[in-house]
Amino acid sequence: MKRRNFLFTAVSGLLGAGIGAGAVLSTRRGEDLSAPMVASGKRELTMVMTWPKNFPGLGTGAERLADSITAATDGRLTVKLYGAGELVPALESFDAVSQGTADMMHAASYYWVGKSPGFAFFTAVPFGFTAPEANAWLYWGGGQELWDSIAGDFNIKSLPAGNTGVQMGGWFRKEMRTLEDFKGIKMRIPGLAGAVLNNIGGSAVTIPGGEIFNSLQSGTIDATEWVGPWNDRAMGFYKVAKFYYYPGFHEPGSTLECAFNLDTWNSFSASDQALLKGLCAAENANMYAEYMAKNSSALDSLIKDEGVQLRRFSSDIFSGLHKAWTTVLDEKVMSSGDAKAQKIAESYLSFRDEVVGWTKLSEQAYTDERAKVLDLS
Amino acid sequence: MKRRNFLFTAVSGLLGAGIGAGAVLSTRRGEDLSAPMVASGKRELTMVMTWPKNFPGLGTGAERLADSITAATDGRLTVKLYGAGELVPALESFDAVSQGTADMMHAASYYWVGKSPGFAFFTAVPFGFTAPEANAWLYWGGGQELWDSIAGDFNIKSLPAGNTGVQMGGWFRKEMRTLEDFKGIKMRIPGLAGAVLNNIGGSAVTIPGGEIFNSLQSGTIDATEWVGPWNDRAMGFYKVAKFYYYPGFHEPGSTLECAFNLDTWNSFSASDQALLKGLCAAENANMYAEYMAKNSSALDSLIKDEGVQLRRFSSDIFSGLHKAWTTVLDEKVMSSGDAKAQKIAESYLSFRDEVVGWTKLSEQAYTDERAKVLDLS
Repeated sequence: MKRRNFLFTAVSGLLGAGIGAGAVLSTRRGEDLSAPMVASGKRELTMVMTWPKNFPGLGTGAERLADSITAATDGRLTVKLYGAGELVPALESFDAVSQGTADMMHAASYYWVGKSPGFAFFTAVPFGFTAPEANAWLYWGGGQELWDSIAGDFNIKSLPAGNTGVQMGGWFRKEMRTLEDFKGIKMRIPGLAGAVLNNIGGSAVTIPGGEIFNSLQSGTIDATEWVGPWNDRAMGFYKVAKFYYYPGFHEPGSTLECAFNLDTWNSFSASDQALLKGLCAAENANMYAEYMAKNSSALDSLIKDEGVQLRRFSSDIFSGLHKAWTTVLDEKVMSSGDAKAQKIAESYLSFRDEVVGWTKLSEQAYTDERAKVLDLS
Repeated sequence: MKRRNFLFTAVSGLLGAGIGAGAVLSTRRGEDLSAPMVASGKRELTMVMTWPKNFPGLGTGAERLADSITAATDGRLTVKLYGAGELVPALESFDAVSQGTADMMHAASYYWVGKSPGFAFFTAVPFGFTAPEANAWLYWGGGQELWDSIAGDFNIKSLPAGNTGVQMGGWFRKEMRTLEDFKGIKMRIPGLAGAVLNNIGGSAVTIPGGEIFNSLQSGTIDATEWVGPWNDRAMGFYKVAKFYYYPGFHEPGSTLECAFNLDTWNSFSASDQALLKGLCAAENANMYAEYMAKNSSALDSLIKDEGVQLRRFSSDIFSGLHKAWTTVLDEKVMSSGDAKAQKIAESYLSFRDEVVGWTKLSEQAYTDERAKVLDLS
C-alpha cells in the first residue's frame, strides 16, 4: 500500500467534464436520505452523479437509466437524482454510497483510484479495452467478479451502465509530428494518462471543465483532451486549437458504473436485482450507441462546418506513449503493494492479450478493408 | 414487388446452423397456444426459435433472455421455449408469430427476406455495420422506427436481442490469392452473400448444418462459412479444410431479434413493455460480449492446438467482392420495386457512410495502432 494514496491526485479523463461544471448546491449529508420510503410498497432510491444532470451522454444516460427503473417497475421503485454537487461533491459520491448517504451513484470507477489503483481498470486504462472488449471481460472474463470483490471491500456493488466509446486524442495548438514534440507541452489530461504524458517530458495539468476553453485560448495550456466530437464540439475547442488528433491512447472505451450501497443492494429481492442488472446492461449498450451516433454526426459537422483539421498520431508517437505506459503501469499498479489491484491488472492484461488477437481478425481487419473499398482509407 | 419472392431461396448466413440441426418434433399449429394463461396474475408466453434450444450463443442466449424475463418479473411472466422445429419449422416462425400461434420468437430478421428484402438490414448485409454501428443505427439512427414500420405490416414488433459480432470469412480447402481463385468455387454461403459469390463466378450452395462437414470432407463443396471460432471449432471444420480466412465481408455484426406478436405486445402494460425492451437490450449486449470472449479463446486454441492456418483476404479480393455487392444490392433491393425496402436501405447506407467516418478515427485507428505496439500487426 506504500504509495497509492499519493498517486492519483488528478481528476481522471472524461470526468473533468461533470466535476468541473457542477456547483455544490447543498451537502445534506447529515440527513439519512437513503432510508427507503415504503408506502404502499413503493420505495424511493437516492442516486448521486459525478456529472451535472443534463450533461449530454453521461448525465442524460444516467437519467434515462433512472427513468427506466421507474417505468419497468410501474413506479414501485423511483430514483431521486442529484447532479454533481447537489447532494455531495462529485468526488465524494463513493463515500456517500459506501456509507449509505446515497443508495446509488452513476459515476466512473477510475475516480476511486485513491481507494485502490485497481478501480482504474473498470473504466479505462491506456492501451486497454475498447467498449465491446470491456464488456467481454466484465460479463464473461471474470471482470465483474473482481469488481464485486474490490467494491465489496467498500460496501459497494457496481454494475456497468454506459460507455463513451474510444475517446479522441485531443486538441492541439500546433502539430505533433514526433514524440519530441511532446516535450514541454502543457496539456489538460488527467489520471494515468497524465502520468504517461509526464513520462515523455510533457506536463499534465488538471483544469475544471469550465476553465479549459479560456486556458487554451490564452495559451496557458497548449492542448487538451476531452471526450469525443459530440461533447467536444459543445465546448468550442475548435475555435482556439486547430488540430484535432486521433486516436486517443488513453481511454479507448470508458465504462460508466451504476453502483449501489451494498446493504441497499442486498435489501432488494432476487427479482429486483435481476431487473436492475438488466436495466444497467441495457443502458450500457444504449449510451455507447448514442455516443457512436452523435459522435458521427458531430465529426461530420466539425469538418464540414468548422474546418477542423484532423491529424493522426504517428505510429512512432504511439510506440513512445506505450513504452511510457508500461513504466507508469509498473510504478502505479504493479509495484503499488496493493495485491487486489495487481490481481485485477493481471486479469485485465491477460484477457486483453487474448482478445486483441480476435479483434485483429474481426472488427479491426473488417473496418480496415471496408474503409478501403469505401475509399476512406 | 416484381421479383423479390424468387430472390432469396437460400437460408441466410449463420442461420443454417439452427435450421439444419433442428428436427420438426411437432407442428401443433392447430392449437391456440398463444392464449395467455391468466392465473393469479401470471402469464405464460410461447417463444419459438430458429435454432435448437442449446445451440451455443444463439440458443443459449435466447434461453438466458427467457430466464431473465421470468426472474425480473418474479415469475409473473414466464416463457415456454420451443427450439427450431419443436412447435413449428424454423422458417415458419415468422408466420407463427404474425398469426399468434406463438407470442414471440428469437430469430434473425434476414430470414424473412421472402416477405421483403428490407428485413435483411436488421440482421446484417455485406459491407454493412459492425455490432456497435448496428446498435447506433437501431437505437439512435431511425433503425428501430423503420423496423417497427415493416414488421408492423406483418403484425409483429421486433427488438434487437443479441449479436454474433464480425463473422469469419470461412474455411477453404485451398488458398484464395486473387478474385480469379473464386471462379468455380463451390461454397456453402447463403443469402445475399451467396449472390455476391455467384456474381464473381463462384457457386453458392445451401446445405443443412449437419451435412456441411461431410460435404467439405468429400470435396462436394470447396469451402464453407459458418459463424466464428467458437461455433466453428465445434463443427470440426479444421479437420477437413486447412485455411481459415478473415475478415468476413458478409456478416460484420449480425443482430438477432426478439419479436412479438403485435397484439401480444400491445396487450402488455407500458411498464412491462419498458421491462421487455430493457431485457432485450441487455441480452443484445450480453450475447455480443459472450461471442467476443469465447471467439477469443477458441481462436487461440484453434491456432495452438489444431494448427489452423489463418489467411487474410487480400484487398483486391475485398474490392472485387464489394463491386459484386453493389450489383447484388441494386438488383435485389433497390430495383425490387419494394418501396419500404428501398427506404430502409437508403437509411442504412446513409447512416453507414457517416458512421464509418467516425469508426475510422476511433475503433479502427485505435485497434490498428494498439496491434502495432503489442506487436500483433
